[in-house]
Amino acid sequence: MAEVPVLIILAGGASSRMWPLREKSLLRFGTEPLLVSQLQRYRALGFQQAIVVANPENRDDITGLLNQVGGMTVQVAVQPEPRGMGDAILRAEPLLAGRGPTALYINQVHDVVDDSLHRALLDAYRDNPDATYLAGYETPDYFPGGYLIVTGEGRITGMVEKPGAANRPSNLVSIVAHIHQDAGRLFDALRAEYAGEAASDDHYERAMDGLMKTQFYRVVPYTGVWSALKYPWHVLDVMNVFLSQIRGQQVAESAFVAKTATLVGDVFIGEGAKIFPGAAVVGPAYVGAHTIVGNNSLVRNSMVLNHCEVGFTTEIARSYVADGCAMHACRVLDSVFAPGVNFSAGCTTANLRIDRGPVPSVVKGQKLDTGRDKLGAIIGRGAFLAVDVMTMPGVKIGEGAQVGPGTHVIRDVADGVRIYVKQELGMSGGDEA
Amino acid sequence: MAEVPVLIILAGGASSRMWPLREKSLLRFGTEPLLVSQLQRYRALGFQQAIVVANPENRDDITGLLNQVGGMTVQVAVQPEPRGMGDAILRAEPLLAGRGPTALYINQVHDVVDDSLHRALLDAYRDNPDATYLAGYETPDYFPGGYLIVTGEGRITGMVEKPGAANRPSNLVSIVAHIHQDAGRLFDALRAEYAGEAASDDHYERAMDGLMKTQFYRVVPYTGVWSALKYPWHVLDVMNVFLSQIRGQQVAESAFVAKTATLVGDVFIGEGAKIFPGAAVVGPAYVGAHTIVGNNSLVRNSMVLNHCEVGFTTEIARSYVADGCAMHACRVLDSVFAPGVNFSAGCTTANLRIDRGPVPSVVKGQKLDTGRDKLGAIIGRGAFLAVDVMTMPGVKIGEGAQVGPGTHVIRDVADGVRIYVKQELGMSGGDEA
Amino acid sequence: MAEVPVLIILAGGASSRMWPLREKSLLRFGTEPLLVSQLQRYRALGFQQAIVVANPENRDDITGLLNQVGGMTVQVAVQPEPRGMGDAILRAEPLLAGRGPTALYINQVHDVVDDSLHRALLDAYRDNPDATYLAGYETPDYFPGGYLIVTGEGRITGMVEKPGAANRPSNLVSIVAHIHQDAGRLFDALRAEYAGEAASDDHYERAMDGLMKTQFYRVVPYTGVWSALKYPWHVLDVMNVFLSQIRGQQVAESAFVAKTATLVGDVFIGEGAKIFPGAAVVGPAYVGAHTIVGNNSLVRNSMVLNHCEVGFTTEIARSYVADGCAMHACRVLDSVFAPGVNFSAGCTTANLRIDRGPVPSVVKGQKLDTGRDKLGAIIGRGAFLAVDVMTMPGVKIGEGAQVGPGTHVIRDVADGVRIYVKQELGMSGGDEA
Repeated sequence: MAEVPVLIILAGGASSRMWPLREKSLLRFGTEPLLVSQLQRYRALGFQQAIVVANPENRDDITGLLNQVGGMTVQVAVQPEPRGMGDAILRAEPLLAGRGPTALYINQVHDVVDDSLHRALLDAYRDNPDATYLAGYETPDYFPGGYLIVTGEGRITGMVEKPGAANRPSNLVSIVAHIHQDAGRLFDALRAEYAGEAASDDHYERAMDGLMKTQFYRVVPYTGVWSALKYPWHVLDVMNVFLSQIRGQQVAESAFVAKTATLVGDVFIGEGAKIFPGAAVVGPAYVGAHTIVGNNSLVRNSMVLNHCEVGFTTEIARSYVADGCAMHACRVLDSVFAPGVNFSAGCTTANLRIDRGPVPSVVKGQKLDTGRDKLGAIIGRGAFLAVDVMTMPGVKIGEGAQVGPGTHVIRDVADGVRIYVKQELGMSGGDEA
Repeated sequence: MAEVPVLIILAGGASSRMWPLREKSLLRFGTEPLLVSQLQRYRALGFQQAIVVANPENRDDITGLLNQVGGMTVQVAVQPEPRGMGDAILRAEPLLAGRGPTALYINQVHDVVDDSLHRALLDAYRDNPDATYLAGYETPDYFPGGYLIVTGEGRITGMVEKPGAANRPSNLVSIVAHIHQDAGRLFDALRAEYAGEAASDDHYERAMDGLMKTQFYRVVPYTGVWSALKYPWHVLDVMNVFLSQIRGQQVAESAFVAKTATLVGDVFIGEGAKIFPGAAVVGPAYVGAHTIVGNNSLVRNSMVLNHCEVGFTTEIARSYVADGCAMHACRVLDSVFAPGVNFSAGCTTANLRIDRGPVPSVVKGQKLDTGRDKLGAIIGRGAFLAVDVMTMPGVKIGEGAQVGPGTHVIRDVADGVRIYVKQELGMSGGDEA
Repeated sequence: MAEVPVLIILAGGASSRMWPLREKSLLRFGTEPLLVSQLQRYRALGFQQAIVVANPENRDDITGLLNQVGGMTVQVAVQPEPRGMGDAILRAEPLLAGRGPTALYINQVHDVVDDSLHRALLDAYRDNPDATYLAGYETPDYFPGGYLIVTGEGRITGMVEKPGAANRPSNLVSIVAHIHQDAGRLFDALRAEYAGEAASDDHYERAMDGLMKTQFYRVVPYTGVWSALKYPWHVLDVMNVFLSQIRGQQVAESAFVAKTATLVGDVFIGEGAKIFPGAAVVGPAYVGAHTIVGNNSLVRNSMVLNHCEVGFTTEIARSYVADGCAMHACRVLDSVFAPGVNFSAGCTTANLRIDRGPVPSVVKGQKLDTGRDKLGAIIGRGAFLAVDVMTMPGVKIGEGAQVGPGTHVIRDVADGVRIYVKQELGMSGGDEA
């Protein structure tokens, strides 16, 4: 049987498009950061060695996570500058020196898929260790990514980026889940590409294009879940994948669930959490450790991490709420809260346009279609929203921002900014009258 | 025994004073449109033939309803122009041709009364089929309608319109529930009136005035419920009559009522309806088919028809909500919603004036006293109210209108209009500071 | 054994700093006005005679209360002008004429302490009836009041007002709980002080300074609860003292508690009160007679007196609500409501500054630090707040004031004034478009 490949996890991509959220690898969808839960899944699949490629900014954070992963060797490589995926892969080479012929399994930390994809790739590789295997996401809908060019027998002969719906060479979108049977040949090919003077930065794809001429590249089709964290609203998609993995009602012994509280469907209730009278947690839902779901509140299809206060009559629906957020008599709908957000009484994240159309959001100055019919707000770490604030669908609020009472937030609010509504008052009566 | 009279239901009156609601005959107060439920009650009382007088606008709608009424013959007559009640009655004549001597029972579709009134009139007529019988609503309070002039023996000698409280000839207000023992003589008298050149359009009253001289007109006094649909807020009164007819707790087998939900008093819960945990339905109340009453919501003294969403912590009190309305974390108080209204989170229909005085409302440019201490809003079909909208007592919002977030609706909003509040923002801090 | 001293209760201080609240003696913290409950406690401790010193304004109110106190002789003296505590005490003298040597126990109605303080003073006096006893509140924190100068043996040799934290002569703050063993000598000393031409009005303290030279003044240290009603937010502190005296769940037989309602901890539910389905009362809490706690509402750590309506999904937390207030789907947080306040749907008393700093409040034109991290609003008798009003932390609203819908109350509102927000609307669409 072929040896298990060495895992390469690319985690050095910039997270700036995730603003006002931060580092993707550190986002928690349950008890562990994303990178840790990904590594644990790989370990369970039999991987024994992993190299995480970080960038200079997240290197320390990532290194700090690794003691949470036992049972496999994990090392961190650093890509000093953002020079593309090929350059990132090359950073793993020194850590493999002296290992002899090695197969590589290349993944991105922010791609969340079913284990079935990994198993299918590993199975294919075990059946025939002489080929390279690329995952192909089968979908009838057009997706603006790379498409695989495939022969009848499943041999990949090329890739084409964003061909347009009419010019798709197949219905197989490339996911970065690649088993290369020979690391040395891949590294050589990548080095050659970087030695040239290519205009574009798709060195990895061009290296593979060359290799395909002499090596066997095979597609492993996949029809399961695939969520990629690129924009901050994708947190909701990834959350849904994790929520779908909760089975039954897992209530910690130290948790309190009031007699008149209701748990419906698949729910996780963490250590020391409290579900007060009249509250409901409707699955799939995750309530973290020491989080309080106050009287008559509702958490449904959501993740509320640790040490949060979900105050009286608060509703959290289809939303992700990180540690230490305080909410009270408010409505958190289709939204993402970073840690420590204060969402006061009477606040609402409006989630539906009056014209019921798809919700746009602005990223780096560009208005994007989020593809979502319902989307609330994305709110950065430690932001304070005073009472009766309303956020328009798709707005983002920066870290530490302050929003005064009664404000309608119509546009994104930058980090640390304070906005407030000016109110014109009339007056009559009293002693002066 | 005298034959049962032929029923004439006047349903051709204009509904323009009902704006932003539409055709009165089609309004549903339960499973059937008002006209259908009226016809079914008449059939149960023994009527075998009915003629509904429509107008050119509602003729098709009304004709479409008639297949819902079995067990009696119903025909539709059309009054081409609004020339008064006498002209409407005359439109029934051709449909009676060849029938021989016929008694008529004349009613208006928008008068909702107890069956006891109909029974009393029929009993009186059976006892003595040689007289004409007019219902007289006994009330000590002054009512701005027609008053009957009655002798000691119950003989009616005349009528007087809005005599003023001090000049009432009796305490008997005329309700249009009239049994004429001889249709032919009535038609003749009406025709004669229309042949003349009267200044006012009370031909029917004048025809009766003439007939009273030679025929016996007797009053049938009545002290039960009487609600007439003239202005849109009257929907609430008529609703109350229908609600008062619910007996006990009628919960469809296919409905779901959560263990921690509460049903109090007389309530109807329709097919496939869902009452979620912590919700309460407090009777008299009607929850229609496939309507969802969400977690911790409250419906009391109200009618919520089919396929509505009463979202989390919504309160609906003393209100009428038609099919397919969506409400969420809001307060619907003393209000009337046409089908398909969207009432978003944080919305409230304010129902009480600060001075606690009676609530006025504007109809066709005229400010009317609605006679109600508490009145919320009347909202037309498909209107969309965004989050945190507040409507002032008595306002009306047109069909398809859109009200932006946080707006206080102080005046009526016309059909299809979009209004929104302009907000002046201040800002400080952040990187610019 | 020494005779029980005659009780002097000083109740003539002005309540103007309590605006928008009124007379302190009349405030109810349970079934009786403060003065009555104080007198009842003294009676239980064995006092037989009391003199309440009123002022011309509150004399009638106070006299009217006395029939509620049985089992002891209570008389009212009136201090015609605010000439200080010494003058107030002298007003009791005529009522003691002919009684012979008498000891006095001087207290202020607005000081709320544990019975243990009174017992300790009485015990000390019984042990040695030849000394004067002053209570000394032991606290390590600096308090801006009078400090006792005490020798090692507990002899008081003087007092110093607001010495500053660094110059405290002891850690014993003076509470006006004083047993004078000889009324005659005290009266004489006070008279002498008033005969002089002192610049300041601390005649009582100066009289005691003189007496200390020839009499034995001893401190009785105290470490229990001490709450003094000086500013209106102190109502919350005094309320907490009273709430802490509720033991177990005292539910009147005539009260209704729905099956799905929840009572937690020490709660008092008065006669005829109703706790509706899904509501919770979380102790320590007091719900007065005939008060309704509506569906899914929450009352916690609060006092809601008689005949109040706590409407659907209302939250009352750490607040004092006097008789006859109407609240509905709103949030009353860390607030004080005088009788008859209307707090409409969607209203919130914001209770936390964005900077999370201590909340200030303005009293007689001066901005004071209330010393509270959380403080909502103080609202005067009969004020009407329309829907969606938000009050900023620490604001006060005068008697009969009216606040229009959606207003943010940023500053205090004077008695009888009406304020409202002016809204600028935009409009588009409709027939005009």
